[in-house]
Amino acid sequence: MLIKEIVINLKHVDFNEIKAMPDRKRAMFINSLSGFKSANLIATQNKQAQTNLAMFSSVVHLGASPALVGFIMRPDNDQRHTLNNIIETGYYSINQVSCEFYRQAHQTSARYSKHQSEFEETNLSPFYIDGFNVPFVKESQLKYAVKLQQIMPISLNNTQFIIGEIVHVMCEEEAMKSDGYIDIEALETVSVSGLDGYHRTQSLTRLNYAKPNVELKNYSFSDDRGINNE
Amino acid sequence: MLIKEIVINLKHVDFNEIKAMPDRKRAMFINSLSGFKSANLIATQNKQAQTNLAMFSSVVHLGASPALVGFIMRPDNDQRHTLNNIIETGYYSINQVSCEFYRQAHQTSARYSKHQSEFEETNLSPFYIDGFNVPFVKESQLKYAVKLQQIMPISLNNTQFIIGEIVHVMCEEEAMKSDGYIDIEALETVSVSGLDGYHRTQSLTRLNYAKPNVELKNYSFSDDRGINNE
Repeated sequence: MLIKEIVINLKHVDFNEIKAMPDRKRAMFINSLSGFKSANLIATQNKQAQTNLAMFSSVVHLGASPALVGFIMRPDNDQRHTLNNIIETGYYSINQVSCEFYRQAHQTSARYSKHQSEFEETNLSPFYIDGFNVPFVKESQLKYAVKLQQIMPISLNNTQFIIGEIVHVMCEEEAMKSDGYIDIEALETVSVSGLDGYHRTQSLTRLNYAKPNVELKNYSFSDDRGINNE
Repeated sequence: MLIKEIVINLKHVDFNEIKAMPDRKRAMFINSLSGFKSANLIATQNKQAQTNLAMFSSVVHLGASPALVGFIMRPDNDQRHTLNNIIETGYYSINQVSCEFYRQAHQTSARYSKHQSEFEETNLSPFYIDGFNVPFVKESQLKYAVKLQQIMPISLNNTQFIIGEIVHVMCEEEAMKSDGYIDIEALETVSVSGLDGYHRTQSLTRLNYAKPNVELKNYSFSDDRGINNE
């Protein structure tokens, strides 16, 4: 009788080994640990209407009431264009990145001068709506305007946590389900691994609200279960 | 001649419409906006060695030097077990969730009493290593011990941003590439959409470091390009 055994070969990397890694290797390694990351373009402009566009993989949900979203601003000079513009105007847009334009989104991370707009340099199109002096990315099928609420300095590593309130959402209508869920896989939104890995997704299931000693139920992504069905 | 035209039907949802949504629907909706989220189990124990295990989709990379990771703690009573334990011992573990056990991971969000351990209730196995009085999730193929560094209260919505330093990593060795990148897709790590959607991934490509006016190069996930190849 053959006994099938799964052998998992776990490698231990301790504190001293992490510290001793060359900087670039440690950046790759540590960036892989948090799991799959969101892929978003943050678009801004200054008071002279000079636009800026930058890729962020750290956008994180903070709460629904009020509708708050955060992201991490690194101390690099490059990303200061984004922050300076946000401080100048008080607004920015967050635009989900999809399969269709993830290469252009990645290219926005090149070090362009402050007189160049990443929109032009990467062939993405700015798009405006009445009442908001921030550009959106036309190619993005899920994007929203955000009003700056708070900048929290993180002294541990000289980064900043930027928090804003979501004030205006634009989304491809077919993907919006009646219970509020947005099928971002149908929008072909990508996710990021490490510093430079891009992935599309393949749905497993939606699961209902967990209760002690009750078996979980599956919901298909095409089910439109409404807001009162659980 | 047939002209193919892609019509994107963007629906606008403004600030007042967001505020007017029923709470549960707004939670579903706003949770969908940040993009794909990481899926991690955070494991802790108190001084009496009572364990706790909770699912988080807000773990975010903060920096590689020092190696810092953050996550959002909501004000719900349930999650206080995790925070209380972290404060008591100063340590916690973060465990990437894979296809193999994402249902059990989701089930940890049920409201168990403080005398029940989610490990037992969901059939996941605690695992210990010398020198750390925190449990890890045995089933996870990428997990690490974290030392609490800072708790930042976010007064805007009564949440807290918990920041810790990564002190010890355990990872399936095959997935670790020589440039530091970890192939988390090979580990079948899942990602989360909204409040309750689970997804596996399908790799597109890795892209090299972007430079102005230089075309991006693809790297396959099985390439092991080393740390000096760019």
